[in-house]
Amino acid sequence: MNDIEIFGNLDAGKNFVNSIQNKRFLFSFVISYTETCEIPGITVAGANLDFIKFTPPADAEFLHYGKCKCIDTIPMTPDGKPTPAILTKVALEAASIPHLVINAGSKIIPDLPYFETGLDYGKNIRNEPALDRYYVLRAIESGRIIGRTLGAVTDCLIIGESIPGGTTTAMAVMKGFGLNGCVSSSIPKNPLDLKNNVVNDALMRSHSKDPYDVIANMGDPMIPLVAGMISAASQSCKVLLAGGTQMAAVLALGHFTGYEKDSIAIGTTSYILNDNSANFLNTIKEIDDVPILIVNPRLEDSKIQGLRSFSEGFVKEGAGAGGTIISAILKTGIDSKKLLEKFEEEYQRVVTLQ
Amino acid sequence: MNDIEIFGNLDAGKNFVNSIQNKRFLFSFVISYTETCEIPGITVAGANLDFIKFTPPADAEFLHYGKCKCIDTIPMTPDGKPTPAILTKVALEAASIPHLVINAGSKIIPDLPYFETGLDYGKNIRNEPALDRYYVLRAIESGRIIGRTLGAVTDCLIIGESIPGGTTTAMAVMKGFGLNGCVSSSIPKNPLDLKNNVVNDALMRSHSKDPYDVIANMGDPMIPLVAGMISAASQSCKVLLAGGTQMAAVLALGHFTGYEKDSIAIGTTSYILNDNSANFLNTIKEIDDVPILIVNPRLEDSKIQGLRSFSEGFVKEGAGAGGTIISAILKTGIDSKKLLEKFEEEYQRVVTLQ
Repeated sequence: MNDIEIFGNLDAGKNFVNSIQNKRFLFSFVISYTETCEIPGITVAGANLDFIKFTPPADAEFLHYGKCKCIDTIPMTPDGKPTPAILTKVALEAASIPHLVINAGSKIIPDLPYFETGLDYGKNIRNEPALDRYYVLRAIESGRIIGRTLGAVTDCLIIGESIPGGTTTAMAVMKGFGLNGCVSSSIPKNPLDLKNNVVNDALMRSHSKDPYDVIANMGDPMIPLVAGMISAASQSCKVLLAGGTQMAAVLALGHFTGYEKDSIAIGTTSYILNDNSANFLNTIKEIDDVPILIVNPRLEDSKIQGLRSFSEGFVKEGAGAGGTIISAILKTGIDSKKLLEKFEEEYQRVVTLQ
Repeated sequence: MNDIEIFGNLDAGKNFVNSIQNKRFLFSFVISYTETCEIPGITVAGANLDFIKFTPPADAEFLHYGKCKCIDTIPMTPDGKPTPAILTKVALEAASIPHLVINAGSKIIPDLPYFETGLDYGKNIRNEPALDRYYVLRAIESGRIIGRTLGAVTDCLIIGESIPGGTTTAMAVMKGFGLNGCVSSSIPKNPLDLKNNVVNDALMRSHSKDPYDVIANMGDPMIPLVAGMISAASQSCKVLLAGGTQMAAVLALGHFTGYEKDSIAIGTTSYILNDNSANFLNTIKEIDDVPILIVNPRLEDSKIQGLRSFSEGFVKEGAGAGGTIISAILKTGIDSKKLLEKFEEEYQRVVTLQ
């Protein structure tokens, strides 16, 4: 397991890793949407504004079918860097990890069976509250029901997400809770000024410290749904939050909705750790002393430029890539060098599809 | 395991039972709808015609919440006999068996998270084809995707269904496949003449022997979805088809869509076996030589008339009751006498709710 580094709570991290080695894993992929992503310049998750809303369902379809159905290509940045779902798909297949999709308010539904929660997408938090408070509570309750079932059928539930613009709502939620809330970005030069302006506009609308008011005012549907999931699932299995700063916001809400601390870890890529603007470790530490598992996917060693760009600060994480790579390593003992070969094969296959 | 009797393929049945004792179980509850149920006199699944469409989602809600949300009471026959979901709920809770809901074209969606398949409800087969052929193929494919995931996370996948009017479409499908196709009923005096008339009207519309044409003409969305599920799930876990004659129709389609025979059994109540009009054992034998596990829920010993009526030919089976009772016994070793006490407690709780 030399490919996985533990940060944060080291002892809890070692226990977490030991308890799930060679065990059963299940990946749940939460797709969602916030109109906040429509603010120009805030995200590159999608080739252009018209495509952004297709990114979450297209990622979900790609994981299942190896191609997308709701769009003709696979999700790309404007200059052609592919979705991190490529990494996720390879990791899941290499370790035969089953997966399912949960729709938490995606604007477009995926063309495959998925868990429906009845949630609507989030509004643009620069202009108006994200959600009705009723929907925040409903999202948490739906998350609990799903988490209870999924937690009962696996040893480790991996939770990943796809919500364009989600780092901005995550940052807003953390600030709303009085935390520092540094966040990462899918762009090397993180548009932090823009994000701060959006967050400040949202903060000015409400001074309520009630956690559900904070989510309603400036969150998104993913955050309360996943908070509900971890609350229930962590009672019966280990939970690996596969993501970067969005999962920090989930954990921040989890402080109020509850979770079994010994059963939770965050798993992400080293690219998030290396993103100085995010100060990821400090951000998590400010919320809770949980373990943070970090994998380096070694994409800097790739002969393919599109993959190397991940290590150069583009995309960095998404679609649960880091957490599923960690899980594949823990389940099967596969090393990151072998995985890199498989990433490259998959990249070549996908490029040929286009 | 004296409470479970094996019929059909005895050796395979013993192997099946031995392989899942004390193992992990997962109950998937498929809710669906066919307008065929609107033919007067064909079903009593619901207090009256306006309520029938609420029965599947209400059963699903009852299993999760212990009460229904889409209606004020729990599903009842017109004279107040309660849904067999009472038995299912008790069995699942007694053995801590996790469960989830799959929507295969229910007319009303349940107020809880569920697997969505994008299928529409089935049309009245007396008047018109049930489904577009495209939707039959889509249902099978959706079933395969769901079955692959669920089969990977459990040792035994229990599949139950709730589709009012479903015995009539099941009968039609079996006749369409050239089988004898005797079916059971939720009423002691099975309205077989009426069912036969409906089936004959449907048969006259098409003479195609293509299995997907048969389902399209006179099936319902549940049958192809569950056939897809067993096709994929039986590759990786045991599958217990929890139901009566509807599951016979699934198995008949499964002849064409494929399944791992050694991994399949049918599990139902002795009330189905005792229903002479159905000739259940012969019906299954005509399709495939699979094991049939039968449990007697001993409701005839109950001090409560509403429960005794199940043993007197009313309701008989539904919402996966028989299969979940069998699973509870196999998972935990609980006996049917102890379960009967729990059924009575639950019945009293529910009656107090009304």
